[in-house]
Amino acid sequence: MATIAEELARKQREISVSEFFERNRQILGFDSTVKALIVAIKEAVDNSLDACEEASVLPEISVTISKVDQNEYRVSVRDNGPGVVRAQMPNVFGRLLYGSRFHAIRQSRGQQGIGISAVVMYSQITTGKATRIRSKIAESDVSNDIELTIDTKKNRPSVVKDDHFIWEEGGKRVDHGTLIEFSLAARYVTGRQSVMEYLRSTAVVNPHATISYTDPEGRTYTFQRATETLPPKAVEVKPHPYGLEIGTLINMLAYTQEKKLSLFLRNEFSRISDRVAKEICEKAMVSADRRPKDVSLQQAKAILDAIGGTKIMAPQTDCLSPIGESLIKRGLKNVLGSLRPEFYAQPVTRPPSVYSGNPYQVEAGVVYGGELASDQPVAIMRYANRVPLLYQQGACAITQAISSIDWRRYGLEQRGGTGIPYGPAVILVHVLSTKLPFTSESKEAIAPIPQIMEEIDLALRACARNLKSHLNKKETKSKAAVKFDIVTEILPKIAEKSSKILQRPVPDISRTITKIMNVVFIEDGVDYDAKKKVAKASVRVRNYTSRKQELKVHALVPPAELDRGSIYPEPEEVSEDGKIMWNLKKLQPLEVVECTFSLKSMERDDYSENEVYISDINPATVIGADPLPGDWGIKTFELEEAEVEEADYDEEESELSEE
Amino acid sequence: MATIAEELARKQREISVSEFFERNRQILGFDSTVKALIVAIKEAVDNSLDACEEASVLPEISVTISKVDQNEYRVSVRDNGPGVVRAQMPNVFGRLLYGSRFHAIRQSRGQQGIGISAVVMYSQITTGKATRIRSKIAESDVSNDIELTIDTKKNRPSVVKDDHFIWEEGGKRVDHGTLIEFSLAARYVTGRQSVMEYLRSTAVVNPHATISYTDPEGRTYTFQRATETLPPKAVEVKPHPYGLEIGTLINMLAYTQEKKLSLFLRNEFSRISDRVAKEICEKAMVSADRRPKDVSLQQAKAILDAIGGTKIMAPQTDCLSPIGESLIKRGLKNVLGSLRPEFYAQPVTRPPSVYSGNPYQVEAGVVYGGELASDQPVAIMRYANRVPLLYQQGACAITQAISSIDWRRYGLEQRGGTGIPYGPAVILVHVLSTKLPFTSESKEAIAPIPQIMEEIDLALRACARNLKSHLNKKETKSKAAVKFDIVTEILPKIAEKSSKILQRPVPDISRTITKIMNVVFIEDGVDYDAKKKVAKASVRVRNYTSRKQELKVHALVPPAELDRGSIYPEPEEVSEDGKIMWNLKKLQPLEVVECTFSLKSMERDDYSENEVYISDINPATVIGADPLPGDWGIKTFELEEAEVEEADYDEEESELSEE
Repeated sequence: MATIAEELARKQREISVSEFFERNRQILGFDSTVKALIVAIKEAVDNSLDACEEASVLPEISVTISKVDQNEYRVSVRDNGPGVVRAQMPNVFGRLLYGSRFHAIRQSRGQQGIGISAVVMYSQITTGKATRIRSKIAESDVSNDIELTIDTKKNRPSVVKDDHFIWEEGGKRVDHGTLIEFSLAARYVTGRQSVMEYLRSTAVVNPHATISYTDPEGRTYTFQRATETLPPKAVEVKPHPYGLEIGTLINMLAYTQEKKLSLFLRNEFSRISDRVAKEICEKAMVSADRRPKDVSLQQAKAILDAIGGTKIMAPQTDCLSPIGESLIKRGLKNVLGSLRPEFYAQPVTRPPSVYSGNPYQVEAGVVYGGELASDQPVAIMRYANRVPLLYQQGACAITQAISSIDWRRYGLEQRGGTGIPYGPAVILVHVLSTKLPFTSESKEAIAPIPQIMEEIDLALRACARNLKSHLNKKETKSKAAVKFDIVTEILPKIAEKSSKILQRPVPDISRTITKIMNVVFIEDGVDYDAKKKVAKASVRVRNYTSRKQELKVHALVPPAELDRGSIYPEPEEVSEDGKIMWNLKKLQPLEVVECTFSLKSMERDDYSENEVYISDINPATVIGADPLPGDWGIKTFELEEAEVEEADYDEEESELSEE
Repeated sequence: MATIAEELARKQREISVSEFFERNRQILGFDSTVKALIVAIKEAVDNSLDACEEASVLPEISVTISKVDQNEYRVSVRDNGPGVVRAQMPNVFGRLLYGSRFHAIRQSRGQQGIGISAVVMYSQITTGKATRIRSKIAESDVSNDIELTIDTKKNRPSVVKDDHFIWEEGGKRVDHGTLIEFSLAARYVTGRQSVMEYLRSTAVVNPHATISYTDPEGRTYTFQRATETLPPKAVEVKPHPYGLEIGTLINMLAYTQEKKLSLFLRNEFSRISDRVAKEICEKAMVSADRRPKDVSLQQAKAILDAIGGTKIMAPQTDCLSPIGESLIKRGLKNVLGSLRPEFYAQPVTRPPSVYSGNPYQVEAGVVYGGELASDQPVAIMRYANRVPLLYQQGACAITQAISSIDWRRYGLEQRGGTGIPYGPAVILVHVLSTKLPFTSESKEAIAPIPQIMEEIDLALRACARNLKSHLNKKETKSKAAVKFDIVTEILPKIAEKSSKILQRPVPDISRTITKIMNVVFIEDGVDYDAKKKVAKASVRVRNYTSRKQELKVHALVPPAELDRGSIYPEPEEVSEDGKIMWNLKKLQPLEVVECTFSLKSMERDDYSENEVYISDINPATVIGADPLPGDWGIKTFELEEAEVEEADYDEEESELSEE
């Protein structure tokens, strides 16, 4: 026995983080040669996009892959970002867990200081070659060119070549930018999980970037930027006190420069004013003047409790930069290309929320029908801080949130009401945060944090309800259309035929028709004028009852694009946020009124389905539009949700009792 | 522009590994308070089991959970392992990426030097409290008691209390062992993913350990060890040259103490003899006497190619310690408890194999039918180096291998022939290796390395074929039984009735029966004698043909438990590895021979289904047993596999053509 504990002790030693990842490269995403190529390019492009955004530069990125031999490729990624100063080049590219974004609370693609150094390491492990980096900052005349490897036993860069050049391209001096070039063991494939698809998906959620790609065959593809506007710059914020943990608080108290507890609270956290800081100190019964270093464990706990019991403003959200509902729709249309789906559900950008003190936000979109495959599981498009997630779908909070919704109630097929639904649909979810909780350093899946799952759930249900309402509308309309056809086409023919036989004049059967129909029938449609880029919407209201009718018709439209002069007939009200209301008075039996309006600067399919509601009439009398919800806001949807759920439970029960 | 690159540079700095994991604790598995409790206990128990095995001690581990308040629990885990020397206690428990197992190539639960320190860190972050560790090594009179925290900014332990005691328990001195005690933010739950289930699953694959568990209500449960035999000790080996990569080779060449290339090859790798080392040097055209440090990149590549082109013995496999087929079956029976499944497929322990130079091995078992839920996805039990995997099922190679098999051909339901199948089945897979490629530091899922996926696939298909053959046998027997019932029960009655009516003697219709049946009918069964712990097996062979028959009957039985004296009638052959062969000569029409044998020291259900084959007779004549395969070994199965696949493809084609 004597020897064992000591024998073990002799073997115990430190493991460097690069040594650890050298042996566990699958954690970084390098678990196959196919994936290695995509992951390496993704890390370089993430870095380029982040750098450009930090410098407020419209990104221009070119990616080139060339074949070295059967198992080896050479990759170069070049950007027009601000560049890296010479002194930091070795550390930024040649040392794991080194970077500028880890300690900042801000939405960025890279956060860990691992990605690009991991690429350098993978390159060297699999090819034995050094990585070349060229970088030029604006204030320097020359670019620095270095070649480096990583000493994995020490996790330190080792520069094997150091030079500088005048960087010219196409005879023009390059002002600033970075180029990284490396060789790696890789396998090049095309298809669903390929470099091309990764870049395409990246372009979709980064419409301000121009990305060009030259494949190993030398063909160049360019995804041109769709907008010249940079996304609002994600600003850096201080941590929000909600979600703070005792250990973190104790650490912060020990390391702060502040001399008084109240100042510490005000200056090291966001959303804590003097007043709130005082309130916290009072509730915790700790002096506001106490030195942070002298705060005891008990007092720290009391402060934490006091924070929990104090009303503090929600975190600022200008640190988050969502894609936005209209760009999501446009993105989806881009990707689905020629498949011509039947319906794009209105995308949803949820309001920002907080988990463990970190602001986060969820966006979602659903596309349905048309030529989408109907006998397959739905396609899931996952994004995290504008980066497409291509692997580990099963481990991701997004997939798990999708799987836990009963999609049968929203018109998709799903065994037992859980799991990935089947049907002709694409589901897109984008999660953005100042700190995304990935399940591993490869950042391929978001950990199923309950709060995040909940927001994804809410976003998806909102899209799903929109889908369901579309499907309901379609069904109601198709039923009504059948009735309408019979009544309005066949009845007159019968009348005509009968009259002929009886040799009597054709009677006016319109009153009979209205009696049989006894509805106000609403049809709506959108025409697109490609030349003028105008979408013309119309809502036709026909009184098929035998009495005069009065009702209000409401349309919800994108306010920025609405051409106010185009609205016909004169609306009773047009609100700032895009609600048009017509008050149709004394609609005679069989009378038709057509309400129209136009939307300017629209791309085809930007606006393809109207949102029309009615009010001030018994909704049972109307076919083709739902009654106006009590409010246009979120509350209404929640109300609706409750109704939908009740209705669905009833359905399920009756199904059961039938069996 | 001037400021941006420099502004960024000012922010660039090192991130300590503990700081990284403090912010990304979900990577270590601490992503919910429910999970945190299980993960923390798992890390401590893994450590205890590893330590005991290293010291060849039969593990006795006790786990106690007590409630501190609504959100906080205190956990203690105590073992009888070799203990940790005082000097190493702070580093082992208070520093991430520090340990004894990372640099060793050996199968162990812990490999990373992260787990237990992560527990200490999580405890301190969520409660602000220090972790207490008591450890005693055999050669010391006293135990050392320390309390420590981690300085996460530096990743260094900070000992806040240091003491020593005489460690007594129940009035007896403790000889050696370790106790760790910590508080943590946690939520205690029962059910499928709970501490109890984790410990139960752990006990299943560690039958040499006694694990006792006291829950927060103070109830103590003990999983007694099922065997006094330690699993064969997993020895440490050198890396195998296959799968070596250029970067790793260059590193090894730079750091080796050897002065000559041939010695370097012989001494730093396993399975390279002097002869093989010379052969490699010759093929690479590099002098065997070259100093390793002087080997160039080109030469290193040539050496790597030469290794690939040289026949080198497969890695030694005594570094792997599989559970074994009979213990897997017993384990499954333990877990499934009272559910009484219909069938336990013969578990499979595949021969060891190699990926990237790392030996690994796969074991699998399948249980089917009985009271297992039939309208649910099959239950999947995943194990890695004898540790149950409870989370991230979707991301795991095991799940992906299961999902990519078309289980419909083996009798389970599965939409489209991919995905997790539905049906009354449990699938167990155990992957063991000197280096398991986990998808993250939380070690919850195995990365889908193609070679590992392939071995899992082979193991599963072998089990699945066994299941299918059982289902076929069941179906054939049930069909035969119907015929048998009609012929043997109704015909005599008709004869009797007819005779009565005609008032004539009942004729002997046995010849008629044999004519109609025209088969040799084999039935087998097992009776269990609980008192004597003996399983009595019988194989009844009945000649239902009108001619004499001759055939050989073969039974495959566990050789160790076979009571050779119990075999009746006298067998023609009993082989060492448990094959009994009876030669039944001149079986008269309607004659019945019952072959029996007994197995000793059996638990109930250890042996519940016979493996019976026939030979030296036209198999078409026999119902109830399959013809003897050409060989008992693996080759046969591969042959079978090919046949199965062909047959299935035909089926699929015909299905398609029907549509």
